[in-house]
Amino acid sequence: MDPLDDAILRSRTVAFAAYGSSEIADMRYLTRFSTTDPVVYVRKAGEQGVIVVSQMECERAARESTAAAMSRAQAGLLDILKEEKDRWKAHARMVAGLAGGPVLVPPHIPYALGRELAALVRVEVDRGALEGMRAVKSGWEVEQIRAVQSATGKAMEHALALITRTRARKGVLYLGAVPLTSERVRSAMHRVLLDHGCTAAETIVACAEETAVPHVTGSGPLHEDQPIVIDVFPRDQRSGYYSDMTRTVCRGEPSPEVSEMFDAVLEAQVLAASRIRPGVSGADVHQEVVDLFTSKGYESGSRGFIHNLGHGVGLEVHESPSLGPGGGLLSAGNVVTNEPGLYYPGTGGVRLENIGLIRDSGFETFSGVPPALVL
Amino acid sequence: MDPLDDAILRSRTVAFAAYGSSEIADMRYLTRFSTTDPVVYVRKAGEQGVIVVSQMECERAARESTAAAMSRAQAGLLDILKEEKDRWKAHARMVAGLAGGPVLVPPHIPYALGRELAALVRVEVDRGALEGMRAVKSGWEVEQIRAVQSATGKAMEHALALITRTRARKGVLYLGAVPLTSERVRSAMHRVLLDHGCTAAETIVACAEETAVPHVTGSGPLHEDQPIVIDVFPRDQRSGYYSDMTRTVCRGEPSPEVSEMFDAVLEAQVLAASRIRPGVSGADVHQEVVDLFTSKGYESGSRGFIHNLGHGVGLEVHESPSLGPGGGLLSAGNVVTNEPGLYYPGTGGVRLENIGLIRDSGFETFSGVPPALVL
Repeated sequence: MDPLDDAILRSRTVAFAAYGSSEIADMRYLTRFSTTDPVVYVRKAGEQGVIVVSQMECERAARESTAAAMSRAQAGLLDILKEEKDRWKAHARMVAGLAGGPVLVPPHIPYALGRELAALVRVEVDRGALEGMRAVKSGWEVEQIRAVQSATGKAMEHALALITRTRARKGVLYLGAVPLTSERVRSAMHRVLLDHGCTAAETIVACAEETAVPHVTGSGPLHEDQPIVIDVFPRDQRSGYYSDMTRTVCRGEPSPEVSEMFDAVLEAQVLAASRIRPGVSGADVHQEVVDLFTSKGYESGSRGFIHNLGHGVGLEVHESPSLGPGGGLLSAGNVVTNEPGLYYPGTGGVRLENIGLIRDSGFETFSGVPPALVL
Repeated sequence: MDPLDDAILRSRTVAFAAYGSSEIADMRYLTRFSTTDPVVYVRKAGEQGVIVVSQMECERAARESTAAAMSRAQAGLLDILKEEKDRWKAHARMVAGLAGGPVLVPPHIPYALGRELAALVRVEVDRGALEGMRAVKSGWEVEQIRAVQSATGKAMEHALALITRTRARKGVLYLGAVPLTSERVRSAMHRVLLDHGCTAAETIVACAEETAVPHVTGSGPLHEDQPIVIDVFPRDQRSGYYSDMTRTVCRGEPSPEVSEMFDAVLEAQVLAASRIRPGVSGADVHQEVVDLFTSKGYESGSRGFIHNLGHGVGLEVHESPSLGPGGGLLSAGNVVTNEPGLYYPGTGGVRLENIGLIRDSGFETFSGVPPALVL
């Protein structure tokens, strides 16, 4: 049985109802309908879902969505609005009418809607059925992520090629007559991604001390002999699926500390790839990496290895399952990152991130860019 | 007084609390912090807001956010999680602790969080204070939107130049040896936008019968003598602000019906621009356009003029105020679109969309691309 139907039955409700634009990943997943305006989704147990859209969007929704399309008039909203001016109360009445009984909702449904709905029918919050469904990718979804990953690899290769072509003057990397900056590398990568129908934002191209803080975007000229962390998580414009990749490189001679960190991070990544498989917990794999780092004298927590080993990737760049201290059991069909890193202020940071599919046979890393520190 | 502080006092609560990633426009507005992971925002009346982020994000948040930054440990969440494993209950306890009393929340706060919070303290839903604040743009915000609009104009000019360079063979527009397609125009526009730090998705480049349905994205070769509707709503990657522009053009000889529709739509847009000002309602301006179309024999509703005259634009492409049947009073500082359109299956569609600022002196349309049907 479909896990969502199962959750409806277990919660003794009769339907699942959600609300939002396709910027809400759950909505995009449930409807496969791309819209900037919020729509209502209602699915009775065992039936196809229905989305309620404006009259103007009805034809497009019928053509593009995996759910059935219904106009607001057909769903009774226009009649309700004649009596009930409060839009949340009106929407709640419409949802209750379409559901015909107690309703299961996702955690993110707007409080204003959930509260009004709970005044009409019993409302239960889904505690993970939808999240669990989204974490187990279909073959179609895996192909979407592989396509983004392929474009991501091309953008990364382009960035590395730019850095490789630089020459250093007084410690600054020059491409021809001008310094190569974070901004220029980022924009060159985004251009490659766009050629493949993908967009990226907040791409990290950080250098030297900037790399010691994992999420600093980076700016200004890149420097010789310093770690350069490039972390890019593009999204396919059509499908909405993400990929995620990080490489750490150095043009020139890295410090011995950075070289050792790179070797340790790469060893941790190889170890993790051999451990990730269905039935083990994300917490256990994370702990094995912590233990490896500890055995090499690196800390975990507020310095050293300061983030989770990995996370699911799909319609959100961070989704279930977690490969971190709280992570539960991994399943076949999960698409996750494997991204150990080490961060020391004064020295710098190193992170290597692959993405791959958990199969019954183990972790299949998607083809990417071979890791190499020195360019 | 700040409208949000005023709303806190009027609701007899002590703080405003919100939750979400910066993909939630309210969160981006309140925090000016860009993050893919949800954060908690709490602001006591009269005080600066605080965001609770992971330890790893604390330094970046302190540097980038207009709110103060606090780690989950500092906010007590890690201690709470030792006793309370349910993440929504734990978050609710943290928010209640930070607020110290009854809480005002935005409508979109997750139901799972709002419900648990309501079990601890009185929770009131903000019915428009934040929406109203966001609808009145600061000078800084207006400048962000002008910048996106400037890039949008360049992308539109590039698209029109491409179409102008085509030659028709058997009704299909060719650029050199190959047909010019919707896809190619779209991708050329996206490239111009990217050069200006903006991304766009779902850009409409529709031709002929496709134009009769307002939100059809369009595909395949463009045709001679047919209306081509180009509607693009890019977003600046850094600031998160949108613009929105539509032009309708024809390479060759438009049908008399399309020419007359174009003239009527342009007249409607000029009329609306002269009527939009502080103190009039969006509903009244919309109705004046309906009346103008009626006087020319065009319908409104399910054919003819089938959408609203306009909408606010900011961190969302559609936000308050509405220039439609339900639209309330307009204010100085609103940034809105002015986009009349006519749609007739069998004939096609025409839409012209400008964006501008409502000033005390009237509507200032941002500089754009002069409307002209025939290329």
